[in-house]
Amino acid sequence: SSGARDEEALIAEWEIAKTTVTKEIENVQALKEKKAAKDEIMAAVGKMKVAKENVARLEKLLFPADKLDIDRDAFDNLLLRRFFVCPSFSIYGGAKGFYDFGPPGCAIKNNLLAFWRQFFVLEENMLEIDTATVTPERVLQASGHVKKFNDLTVKDLTTGAYHRADHLLEDFVGELLKAPGVTPEKAQEYRTVIKLADDYTAEQLGVVMKKYSVVSPDGNPISDPFPANLMLETSVGRGDGKSYLRPETAQGIFVNFGRLLEFNGNKLPFAAATIGLAYRNEIAPRAGLLRVREFTLAEIEHFVFPDDKSHPKFDSVRDVEVNLLSAERQDRVVPSPVVMKIEDALKNSIIQNETVGYFIARVQLFMEAIGIKKEGLMFRQHRENEMAHYAQDCWDAEILTSYGWIEAMGIADRACFDLTKHAKGAGARMSVFRSFSEPREVEEVQMTVQKSAIGKTFKKEAKPLLVHLTSLDQEQIVKLQENLASGSTDIVLGDATFTVTGDMVKFKNVKKKVNGENIIPSVVEPSFGIGRILYCLLEHSFYAREDARRTVVALSPVIAPVKCSVLPLQQNANFGPVVQKVSALLTSSGISNKVDDVGQSIGKRYARTDEIGIPFGITVDFDTLKENEEGKDATVTLRDRDSTKQIRIPISELTSTILSIINSQSSWEDATQRFPAHTTED
Amino acid sequence: SSGARDEEALIAEWEIAKTTVTKEIENVQALKEKKAAKDEIMAAVGKMKVAKENVARLEKLLFPADKLDIDRDAFDNLLLRRFFVCPSFSIYGGAKGFYDFGPPGCAIKNNLLAFWRQFFVLEENMLEIDTATVTPERVLQASGHVKKFNDLTVKDLTTGAYHRADHLLEDFVGELLKAPGVTPEKAQEYRTVIKLADDYTAEQLGVVMKKYSVVSPDGNPISDPFPANLMLETSVGRGDGKSYLRPETAQGIFVNFGRLLEFNGNKLPFAAATIGLAYRNEIAPRAGLLRVREFTLAEIEHFVFPDDKSHPKFDSVRDVEVNLLSAERQDRVVPSPVVMKIEDALKNSIIQNETVGYFIARVQLFMEAIGIKKEGLMFRQHRENEMAHYAQDCWDAEILTSYGWIEAMGIADRACFDLTKHAKGAGARMSVFRSFSEPREVEEVQMTVQKSAIGKTFKKEAKPLLVHLTSLDQEQIVKLQENLASGSTDIVLGDATFTVTGDMVKFKNVKKKVNGENIIPSVVEPSFGIGRILYCLLEHSFYAREDARRTVVALSPVIAPVKCSVLPLQQNANFGPVVQKVSALLTSSGISNKVDDVGQSIGKRYARTDEIGIPFGITVDFDTLKENEEGKDATVTLRDRDSTKQIRIPISELTSTILSIINSQSSWEDATQRFPAHTTED
Repeated sequence: SSGARDEEALIAEWEIAKTTVTKEIENVQALKEKKAAKDEIMAAVGKMKVAKENVARLEKLLFPADKLDIDRDAFDNLLLRRFFVCPSFSIYGGAKGFYDFGPPGCAIKNNLLAFWRQFFVLEENMLEIDTATVTPERVLQASGHVKKFNDLTVKDLTTGAYHRADHLLEDFVGELLKAPGVTPEKAQEYRTVIKLADDYTAEQLGVVMKKYSVVSPDGNPISDPFPANLMLETSVGRGDGKSYLRPETAQGIFVNFGRLLEFNGNKLPFAAATIGLAYRNEIAPRAGLLRVREFTLAEIEHFVFPDDKSHPKFDSVRDVEVNLLSAERQDRVVPSPVVMKIEDALKNSIIQNETVGYFIARVQLFMEAIGIKKEGLMFRQHRENEMAHYAQDCWDAEILTSYGWIEAMGIADRACFDLTKHAKGAGARMSVFRSFSEPREVEEVQMTVQKSAIGKTFKKEAKPLLVHLTSLDQEQIVKLQENLASGSTDIVLGDATFTVTGDMVKFKNVKKKVNGENIIPSVVEPSFGIGRILYCLLEHSFYAREDARRTVVALSPVIAPVKCSVLPLQQNANFGPVVQKVSALLTSSGISNKVDDVGQSIGKRYARTDEIGIPFGITVDFDTLKENEEGKDATVTLRDRDSTKQIRIPISELTSTILSIINSQSSWEDATQRFPAHTTED
Repeated sequence: SSGARDEEALIAEWEIAKTTVTKEIENVQALKEKKAAKDEIMAAVGKMKVAKENVARLEKLLFPADKLDIDRDAFDNLLLRRFFVCPSFSIYGGAKGFYDFGPPGCAIKNNLLAFWRQFFVLEENMLEIDTATVTPERVLQASGHVKKFNDLTVKDLTTGAYHRADHLLEDFVGELLKAPGVTPEKAQEYRTVIKLADDYTAEQLGVVMKKYSVVSPDGNPISDPFPANLMLETSVGRGDGKSYLRPETAQGIFVNFGRLLEFNGNKLPFAAATIGLAYRNEIAPRAGLLRVREFTLAEIEHFVFPDDKSHPKFDSVRDVEVNLLSAERQDRVVPSPVVMKIEDALKNSIIQNETVGYFIARVQLFMEAIGIKKEGLMFRQHRENEMAHYAQDCWDAEILTSYGWIEAMGIADRACFDLTKHAKGAGARMSVFRSFSEPREVEEVQMTVQKSAIGKTFKKEAKPLLVHLTSLDQEQIVKLQENLASGSTDIVLGDATFTVTGDMVKFKNVKKKVNGENIIPSVVEPSFGIGRILYCLLEHSFYAREDARRTVVALSPVIAPVKCSVLPLQQNANFGPVVQKVSALLTSSGISNKVDDVGQSIGKRYARTDEIGIPFGITVDFDTLKENEEGKDATVTLRDRDSTKQIRIPISELTSTILSIINSQSSWEDATQRFPAHTTED
């Protein structure tokens, strides 16, 4: 495509530009060494600067933005000041990695979850369940979490503080990258290390950290990296119930697979969903709301036959455009994502199957609907080395924030890993019976146990062996036949070893009709970090009006904590009854609203409602009171947060107008056509 | 009142009837002893039986029902079979005290919480927040939970098993009560012990258990009762963060009181609310869903000035009738509740203040709205000895179930206990400034520190004493003045003791104007056990049709997990498109629905939807297909779960008809007037 050709040309230009920079740097150094004239050096420095600017310009074109440009101090200040969130237990000095949601934050979270449920669960008739957070150790042993849910950690050998090894490496090398005089080649090397930091094994990480002489943030020597389990432990009952706070909600679905399958009439495919708390004992929480120890997850497990990962509703998302960063592109010099249609990504085998593709498209639509900016969202495919061995295809939805691109949710084709683990761990049936279109004839090895031969050899001790031999399944029988090919084989049962010889069992090949087979389903798992999505959404919604102190959180009506403010123009007892009437009218129509009559100017109160994201402001003014007294259909002013424009509207038309905008049946523009503008100095 | 007179007359009659029973029992024994004629004994036994029946009849009139009469086996079976709930991790043998909600249970829980939020939070503009479940130890030390959140426990000295002491006593004495030949007097004594079981101190409980020679359920000797803390413990970080899983959600509100007050414009009264998980490490969980270790609470903290507990919306609930069992009535021979209007309960000082009364009435309305039966709900006031020392007035909403009357929520006036505890524990301000109507003149003691006298005595060691003396508040100054009345006093600071004499400080009485005072608010706390309410609601909704095997869960549309089923009359590919069209139509109107096309007779599928509480069933039949083919406005049948009646209704009128019934704007009866009846053999 011409897009790819353009990119190649740009990359070539960038390579040349980088060489030019190196040359100009060398030139300046040479001039300085030979103590050339000041003018001459200045001219060379000028040329070097131009060359560097050219590289920067080209990199801006080639690389996606790596940070959202917002005033983070103003943003953090707003979140705390308006009580969107606050550190938990702050009157007690706080608890690191725990956050509380205040009234606006809590309402936004509730709206986000309600919309998620509407968009995913109800729309597709998923089976939503709600399961325990406290999980017995044996469940998480079977799932692999007790052994493998670790972060590589280093210890500061002087202070004893713990640090996440990959983060420490990223920060340390990040500083090297910022140092003056770094050559483009060195910069490239540092960037690669940062990119790979969370993929390294403990050993690799140790080698790399030694190479760069990484020290702790306090400048002290550090230990070798070692794995630290991230689960919070507890004990249920009186000493006998070692348990963990679940690190994810998904296990609650897997352990209930049998009941869910039955609830679904024993049919595949189907999806289960769950929303709930999960916990991770992060080694050193940082980045505020983005890395916390207690958080809400919304997870879907979509079960399919391993040989049929088509999705019945794929047609409905065929044309959805998504911003994809494939594994292959991440290994390029320029690892930037590409916008393409979902169906094209499938055709080109960038996405592995329809179900994964379907969910990528649905997540794209969901993110757009809640207000994530299109250009600030991409789907990044896991590279081979960051995927678990069993996973078939994994994509993270990454959102651009002031902290960089943040993983806000992931979609993983986990094959039959989880169900197989629990089938083994619990000895439970985790399969679906699938009928063949017609019965099939299969060949089997039939084994007959020769009791007399066994009795003769083992006498009174024969019983366990007899029980064992009669319980073997087809696979085990074939194995035994193989082992006996050499004459005899040892079978260990409890403390006893039985040497079994060829005369003790007889084999015969038989033909058998079977109607179907038991299959352990594969699962595709879209997993949403609700707190992270919420945080990213707030950053995407935040901006300052011309006057930088007037900040706004421009949340969409579906997510906004409160839909309307109701304001008396002045603090005056006469306004009270009408304000209450309007508020009650809105409430009875299901439009959440907040009366703000705390004596400040109307402009200041508008600013306050802008800051907590309320999309509409209704003001009861003197005209309202006058019309009301005269027995007319009184009017109020209705203000749109985003344009700050106002219209004058009869109270009788208020709720229908607002509801129709909230439900996307009409727009604010339509309303400005129907009702006269109202102008004030806001 | 005549009601009270009737009751007194009944009680008198009951007392006489009980004496008669005792007399008749003695008579029978006397006859047996003197070996009277068989006929004579039989006649006396007959009279004894009649007397006993008379007592039973009177007790039925005097005492409220003590158990809901449902087929619990059938009910439990239904809950599991239809996956309303199941024991958590059951494929691993389960985890005692933990339950998962399957699809119908989860949907009911979500609907219940959404309705709760609508009814309490939105209706009254409460400040809802969402706070951490993992709570640092120091927070729960301050709140008193580390010391006092205990259950009295006994240990089986043979098996080592633990039992809740009060439950063991109740069960044990309950068995004594059931034994044949128990006299009415003895029965009365046993009933009193059972009633008081959970009020006894450890010592009292020990004495009572010895008196009745209580043994463990396995018949073994038991230890003395001792307190066992009920919080689940965990550790955050690497070894330094001893924490607990919160035993209630309320502390999350208290520790955020300052921010909430500010969010509310520093005004009282206001209410905050929170919904979330709480945990109790129950000693021996029993009674299934009613006593679990992990559960959802919905709690409200309504903050008021201690001297003004009026409620602005009390007028709206004045006439609400509630079933009240006051503390006073519980001490009567006949401890039955009385129906009265909330305003009368306040006038008669049965309820202590308007805010408590307001919430009792609102809870009554809430419970009725979700479907709790009026006769199965009462509010029981805490008796003096079961209330915490700080509490002013406490009421439990108790619901009648097959396990007896169950506390499903409580309303407690906790005075300023919690905020005072945290003010002290965290050294934080937990008060509201209230202006006086006009400034007041107050007298104060002013203290001047005589530096020269102190310097002369303590020389270089004087500094800490000087710092201490200049930091004293009014209360401490007055105290020091008192202590110095006898000439001198010792002040200990760190390791040093300073003997302070009268010449070191001078006191003067001064007058001062103050504009207001700082007041720590009182709090009224309605606290809802969501799982318990849900369980009680399911019991109240459960019944069997004439055919006992056809059980129904008659949930109201607002709570029902799914509002409509959509059923093809037969399993036939022709029905598919119309069924999907109807389902999509319902979904787009926000009516949740479930297509059931798993090949069984329509009657069996209706039975299945009855069992999961779906109020309406839509069937696409051959007439629908025919009308559809002919291009007519096709009709379907609509079935009402409770009456099992059906109407024939055009698809075009379906959503508006169903929505209007769901939103209580019209009734099923109205629909039967508008559309023709449809009859089949269901």
